[in-house]
Amino acid sequence: MSLSVAVAGASGYAGGELLRLLAGHPDFTVTTVTAFSNAGQSLASAQPHLRSLGHLTLAETTAQSLAGHDVVFLALPHGKSGELTEHLPAAALVVDCGADHRLRSASDWAAFYPGQYFEAWDYGVPELIVGGAKQREALVGSRRIAAPGCNASTVALALAPGIAAGVIEERDLVAVLAVGPSGAGKALKLENLASEILGSANPYAVGGTHRHIPEILQGLRGAGAQSPTISFTPVIVPMSRGILATSTARIVPGTSATAIRDAWESAYADEPFVHLLPAGSFPRTADVLGANTALIGLAIDEAAGRVVTVTAVDNLVKGTAGAAIQSANIALGLRETAGLPVDGVAP
Amino acid sequence: MSLSVAVAGASGYAGGELLRLLAGHPDFTVTTVTAFSNAGQSLASAQPHLRSLGHLTLAETTAQSLAGHDVVFLALPHGKSGELTEHLPAAALVVDCGADHRLRSASDWAAFYPGQYFEAWDYGVPELIVGGAKQREALVGSRRIAAPGCNASTVALALAPGIAAGVIEERDLVAVLAVGPSGAGKALKLENLASEILGSANPYAVGGTHRHIPEILQGLRGAGAQSPTISFTPVIVPMSRGILATSTARIVPGTSATAIRDAWESAYADEPFVHLLPAGSFPRTADVLGANTALIGLAIDEAAGRVVTVTAVDNLVKGTAGAAIQSANIALGLRETAGLPVDGVAP
Amino acid sequence: MSLSVAVAGASGYAGGELLRLLAGHPDFTVTTVTAFSNAGQSLASAQPHLRSLGHLTLAETTAQSLAGHDVVFLALPHGKSGELTEHLPAAALVVDCGADHRLRSASDWAAFYPGQYFEAWDYGVPELIVGGAKQREALVGSRRIAAPGCNASTVALALAPGIAAGVIEERDLVAVLAVGPSGAGKALKLENLASEILGSANPYAVGGTHRHIPEILQGLRGAGAQSPTISFTPVIVPMSRGILATSTARIVPGTSATAIRDAWESAYADEPFVHLLPAGSFPRTADVLGANTALIGLAIDEAAGRVVTVTAVDNLVKGTAGAAIQSANIALGLRETAGLPVDGVAP
Amino acid sequence: MSLSVAVAGASGYAGGELLRLLAGHPDFTVTTVTAFSNAGQSLASAQPHLRSLGHLTLAETTAQSLAGHDVVFLALPHGKSGELTEHLPAAALVVDCGADHRLRSASDWAAFYPGQYFEAWDYGVPELIVGGAKQREALVGSRRIAAPGCNASTVALALAPGIAAGVIEERDLVAVLAVGPSGAGKALKLENLASEILGSANPYAVGGTHRHIPEILQGLRGAGAQSPTISFTPVIVPMSRGILATSTARIVPGTSATAIRDAWESAYADEPFVHLLPAGSFPRTADVLGANTALIGLAIDEAAGRVVTVTAVDNLVKGTAGAAIQSANIALGLRETAGLPVDGVAP
Repeated sequence: MSLSVAVAGASGYAGGELLRLLAGHPDFTVTTVTAFSNAGQSLASAQPHLRSLGHLTLAETTAQSLAGHDVVFLALPHGKSGELTEHLPAAALVVDCGADHRLRSASDWAAFYPGQYFEAWDYGVPELIVGGAKQREALVGSRRIAAPGCNASTVALALAPGIAAGVIEERDLVAVLAVGPSGAGKALKLENLASEILGSANPYAVGGTHRHIPEILQGLRGAGAQSPTISFTPVIVPMSRGILATSTARIVPGTSATAIRDAWESAYADEPFVHLLPAGSFPRTADVLGANTALIGLAIDEAAGRVVTVTAVDNLVKGTAGAAIQSANIALGLRETAGLPVDGVAP
Repeated sequence: MSLSVAVAGASGYAGGELLRLLAGHPDFTVTTVTAFSNAGQSLASAQPHLRSLGHLTLAETTAQSLAGHDVVFLALPHGKSGELTEHLPAAALVVDCGADHRLRSASDWAAFYPGQYFEAWDYGVPELIVGGAKQREALVGSRRIAAPGCNASTVALALAPGIAAGVIEERDLVAVLAVGPSGAGKALKLENLASEILGSANPYAVGGTHRHIPEILQGLRGAGAQSPTISFTPVIVPMSRGILATSTARIVPGTSATAIRDAWESAYADEPFVHLLPAGSFPRTADVLGANTALIGLAIDEAAGRVVTVTAVDNLVKGTAGAAIQSANIALGLRETAGLPVDGVAP
Repeated sequence: MSLSVAVAGASGYAGGELLRLLAGHPDFTVTTVTAFSNAGQSLASAQPHLRSLGHLTLAETTAQSLAGHDVVFLALPHGKSGELTEHLPAAALVVDCGADHRLRSASDWAAFYPGQYFEAWDYGVPELIVGGAKQREALVGSRRIAAPGCNASTVALALAPGIAAGVIEERDLVAVLAVGPSGAGKALKLENLASEILGSANPYAVGGTHRHIPEILQGLRGAGAQSPTISFTPVIVPMSRGILATSTARIVPGTSATAIRDAWESAYADEPFVHLLPAGSFPRTADVLGANTALIGLAIDEAAGRVVTVTAVDNLVKGTAGAAIQSANIALGLRETAGLPVDGVAP
Repeated sequence: MSLSVAVAGASGYAGGELLRLLAGHPDFTVTTVTAFSNAGQSLASAQPHLRSLGHLTLAETTAQSLAGHDVVFLALPHGKSGELTEHLPAAALVVDCGADHRLRSASDWAAFYPGQYFEAWDYGVPELIVGGAKQREALVGSRRIAAPGCNASTVALALAPGIAAGVIEERDLVAVLAVGPSGAGKALKLENLASEILGSANPYAVGGTHRHIPEILQGLRGAGAQSPTISFTPVIVPMSRGILATSTARIVPGTSATAIRDAWESAYADEPFVHLLPAGSFPRTADVLGANTALIGLAIDEAAGRVVTVTAVDNLVKGTAGAAIQSANIALGLRETAGLPVDGVAP
């Protein structure tokens, strides 16, 4: 059985990564690719690395061009998918890689995004602890899924086990991330130029203004936090892909080191794509390049009174396109790991 | 007047940077360069970028070869300068770029370094607040100076103003740094290979084990802290030089935003090399590449209850060789800024 | 059916890439991995990106440990595989990724390599034109295959069609390559350190001394050249993987542009992994990262009288491990493309 | 004495580099900086690395704003300086870093550039051999100087000595360059984005279409060539700055190795900024980062019948801004090396 798939926003980086993974997926056949300004172009010119799909041509992104598919993946700028999705057939599985359907609070949306608020869909991070279970359960049979923000899911996966187990405090979390520029897409802005980024580390959205903050906190509330707070600082570094998130939290006084480590071990012991590394080991982003894997290293700094987690993710795979496909696999009753590499491309 | 200078460890990265800056210094003449395993080689082969000094030959690093100079800069592995310096003439200015003479506590040393403890020298970070004044005063006329650890001075400069002004709490500081690999020197280790570092962000010394932690805390105690704690995580990123330190601290309850910003503004208003950027601006490491400048951006995150400082430094200049020369300038009564670039090489 | 596979040299970069590809191969099961100095270590510590094979432990590299497998891949330093392979069973397929069995001329070997000469095996570049046919034919049923040198196969594939068709001159070829440092393996040498390579382009083996030169010329003689000459210069650039080879040749006087383009089009029209791009298009190494694909762009510079080919290859895949597996597929009668990605990981 | 200087195009990369060097020049004072779209902005926001000039504000680029200065440097897009310069005072020294005044042939211009042809000015490469002498002589007292194209001057400097000495053939030159993206300026184009360039080598202008080709050939004709030809291929690699040019030429039959090396040695023996490295040594771009130095390594490949030169230059310094200032120094009778670093910033 092969399900027909359309990818909207196929000329961008997230769209390209969806296509790279879908091309190797045993159950999906990409039949339609769409774009806005690049419509009419061959996919071969927009995504020259996708040799196996070079025969496709980019259609216009409209409800019409996306209709008639079993699955529709949207990789569109914020605001665009919200407008579009109400016109898509209810029976089709729609997975949105944009932000439009992630936040359950309209006021969170208004505080961080411009434009209209759209209702939240099922959140596409299967491994996230929600109310003592996993988010995976909510995805079974779903027809509307919001793939996560890459930074948000990375930090939420890193901290949720400690919150859920009550071993770390939910107030005063601190996360600093080294991230590659591909998360910013193909936006033609000065700060995205190679000359600005090569040989330099460049912070942005410093001081609590990044749009992924409400999404992180929403994820942690799902894990049991009441009113968590986080200081969140992303730093662009000269690698095309990858997130290395150092996420720290105060240890709840009196908690043993064993109890802390157990919280993460038990949360992710059976997960195919989220792995806790042995004590003393910490991941590099190269270890997960091109893979749908999140690697977490955990240290307990008694002098500082903090748990330090270091999490490596490929922002375009586990952070976006891989999470979308993994969630689609679950929704459709396919093997959860189908089409998703677990080994990174290194060095 | 030109003072004669010897540089020990001249074949390494810190030694090379000392030489690059000294070659352009109006008051110094480098007459001797020394090395251990590279002794006998021409400087031109060990440091091919130093065209103006290519006529020099590397002598053996011994007390004899370093004697008879007005100034001696040491850029040696930990433990080596301690052994050597007791044999150097008391009248010569000796500036040590290694760790041997930085820590005032023998137990701090024992907790983080192997080998013998050596007494602390005057700490070479002129702008650091110490007891209400600046460390600069302690350097006037000094003949023994310990240049700082690059990460340590970066974080200490970032947080000391807030500590001294009483606007941030000294407990539960958190610093995460993106750093270039040149800080590790020319050590032939797998983790320093280009293939391991290109395209990847790699954490190390996670969980409170980095040797610069006691030096940071010593600096903050100088600024007035009683028993500060810090969670400190360095991440190697693919740029040869540079430190981007995100250093955060809890705001003392009831402190106004104005009072916070004033703490940093008043601390660094007159400093030639440490600059607070305007509100809303944050530095990139490219802005200080090759320069003796530290740039600090500051944000107040009210939701998180934290001050976030982002500080950019060239680890080899303001972090090491530039700090050494600036301190030497002060010690010898020269113009403090002599020979030290303030403009970065960007892009 | 699943064939049992051993990989020797599994802790290195080429060995790791063999394992990454073999882990996804439908017909192979890796049962043994071996190393020299890393023997006894878990594969998880030597190759932390290979999550799916983390249960394996590195055995000692000996004829005994490699015996009893259907297929043995060798990724060993030069000279090591030659010594070992005479002790391996004749019935097993042995694919050597080292240089020991590539050269058919003992004097070529002596001119460029130290140590003993070993006899040449079937050369593992299936698409190479040999005597009017393809090298693929020689690989069918083979039990001893020498995978190519990455630079050598890239340049040979780029120029062979023009040689075979008689449209370019065989004398005075010129090739300059931008290459990533992973081709140098994990050798702990100063020139391989990240600080030496980040932000810099570094030439090596300039002036006709590179070991891949005789291998290139051997390949071109196979395509019909009598006594070809080539100026060959590799330049290390700051990307972990990839070869971008600019290979140029004088046009045979009187040849039409159509005849030139036809030579390459007809040579590679049906190849699954070697693709000629449309006129005016040229490849980037990112387009083939992680893929077994060689992309060739071709221009005719009439003013200069030269054909210019630009070829992009991933040195660890099509240049080494992918070529080895593709050749093994052919030798064993499996689907030639099994286990080999054609799409690159970009950006 | 301090001469007043205006820099037009001060918000771009070449303009920024002019300012960085001028800020340290003993004889120049920058009093005016101008821009087009960024006019009105502070220089501190456009060039945050130029801390010493942060007090300046960008004026509109007009003949009026540039009038009244002793020296005017133009770093403008092609076509803009041609229009402007006829309105600048004849007594002022004007140095144009754009292409408008480089080519002496209107038909060369028409073949490679759009828009109007403007007359050629004195060419700003002092070390270039011209009619048996050096171009330096033509610059003494000049008031109109065209700074070179970075690729063009690099290749011309590499090959001119061999042409002038008659030891290499002028036909069938081949040059392939690894270049950083800063040469493309701040143009907001997809191919200049960091995600496109990180981890990849990307060719452009393949097959004889690059605009610097007529400028190279003009330079070589100055050195004595009658009708030289060159195959020229630039490759963008992931470093912000730098050119590593591999420029090769056929050896004139019967020429001795000594005669070849002598040609380059005698050409550059007394040059402060162009250095021939010892036999067997080849330069890296890191060796000249930030410096006005060109380093040339030379090999003789007898088997290939070619001289291979490898030349490292910082495209923004010796390739553009440094060449402009060096030429201005000569024109004005200042010390030729004033304000120009010879040592690179490495690693």
